[in-house]
Amino acid sequence: MGKKALVLLSGGIDSTTALAIAESEGLQIFALTFDYGQRHSQEIESARKIVETLKVKEHQVIKINLREIGGSALTDEIEVPRDQPIGKGIPITYVPARNTIFLSYALGWAEVLGINDIFIGANAIDYSGYPDCRPEYLAAFEKMANLATRAAVEGKRLKLHAPLLNLTKAEIIRKGISLGVDYSLTHSCYDPSPEGRPCGRCDSCRLRRKGFQEAGVDDPLA
Amino acid sequence: MGKKALVLLSGGIDSTTALAIAESEGLQIFALTFDYGQRHSQEIESARKIVETLKVKEHQVIKINLREIGGSALTDEIEVPRDQPIGKGIPITYVPARNTIFLSYALGWAEVLGINDIFIGANAIDYSGYPDCRPEYLAAFEKMANLATRAAVEGKRLKLHAPLLNLTKAEIIRKGISLGVDYSLTHSCYDPSPEGRPCGRCDSCRLRRKGFQEAGVDDPLA
Repeated sequence: MGKKALVLLSGGIDSTTALAIAESEGLQIFALTFDYGQRHSQEIESARKIVETLKVKEHQVIKINLREIGGSALTDEIEVPRDQPIGKGIPITYVPARNTIFLSYALGWAEVLGINDIFIGANAIDYSGYPDCRPEYLAAFEKMANLATRAAVEGKRLKLHAPLLNLTKAEIIRKGISLGVDYSLTHSCYDPSPEGRPCGRCDSCRLRRKGFQEAGVDDPLA
Repeated sequence: MGKKALVLLSGGIDSTTALAIAESEGLQIFALTFDYGQRHSQEIESARKIVETLKVKEHQVIKINLREIGGSALTDEIEVPRDQPIGKGIPITYVPARNTIFLSYALGWAEVLGINDIFIGANAIDYSGYPDCRPEYLAAFEKMANLATRAAVEGKRLKLHAPLLNLTKAEIIRKGISLGVDYSLTHSCYDPSPEGRPCGRCDSCRLRRKGFQEAGVDDPLA
């Protein structure tokens, strides 16, 4: 049995690919998904389907309610922007402290499971400019984590892996396809129709479309 | 109207005193309490009573379930140790990543409220040896927080205040009394009886007793 790893899995392209990469390294995967009150909660269903197709030892879906905090188009009564330029400032779909909260839970669960490796699908190339996806943020979280726990005091070193950090969306998709990822199971849209159809116009839909186009591959969802 | 501050409030002596200190500095207080599945959930009722006696603008009790993670005598089916030496290693009442999770939520809520100052009652003198109460941990969290948010990118600087960090429990109690804190409202015991009586023998009860004794004050709960 390989070394264990914890993977944050939202159900989108990036986290699914990060999971496939961890799996391809022979790691025994514990996947962690958050039902956080997100507008696009159907991504949780995607995550559940994805773990069935990949070798995942355990999948935990933790329910928290970031609507109590709000302040984002994904967790508050704020409209999701459509057709807005990407990469000009931090968009209103930014969820305050989301990755910090997710990684904190991951840190706790990893400690209980005796896991020293956490994977996150953060990307700083074809992304929406969220501050908590930047390499300097991830490095600071890792440093903090290595002071936070009993495991750290006992000399275990937590490593935060962000294997997609410097890949384009097209490179991510090509990598995932080479690993056998079924992207038809993933969900990207921030603001799907009640029937679950992607809007095609939010940042996330457009980054996905650009990625498949540049990868020269048809999006199985399109 | 004073500057706003967010205070983590468990309902125990330390966080209540930290809140009173923030209030005495003329800050407008937003208090944050977690109903996290703790064995001693009556501390949440204490927190609710405390905010009624102090000037608190808003009190939010966030429900999360750290029993999904477990790994602690406070959140799992593990007995709370009694009459054990304090300060020899990290006890089983340590909750994996608890302060990191709490501070992450605080970070998110602070950002939404436009708050740059977070108070935590962490203490590194008369404490149980929890790694996430140490000054080096708090400094690392603050550093990470200042890379995590939109507020940080926009140049706002988050400051983490731990005014009790280097005080003895007796000094904390004297400080609180001088500020008018009613310690009869606080709760400390990790493992109270079903009727809510403190056990008197867990670390938390004993640190409380030692504090009042050394302060030369009667504990209104005793």
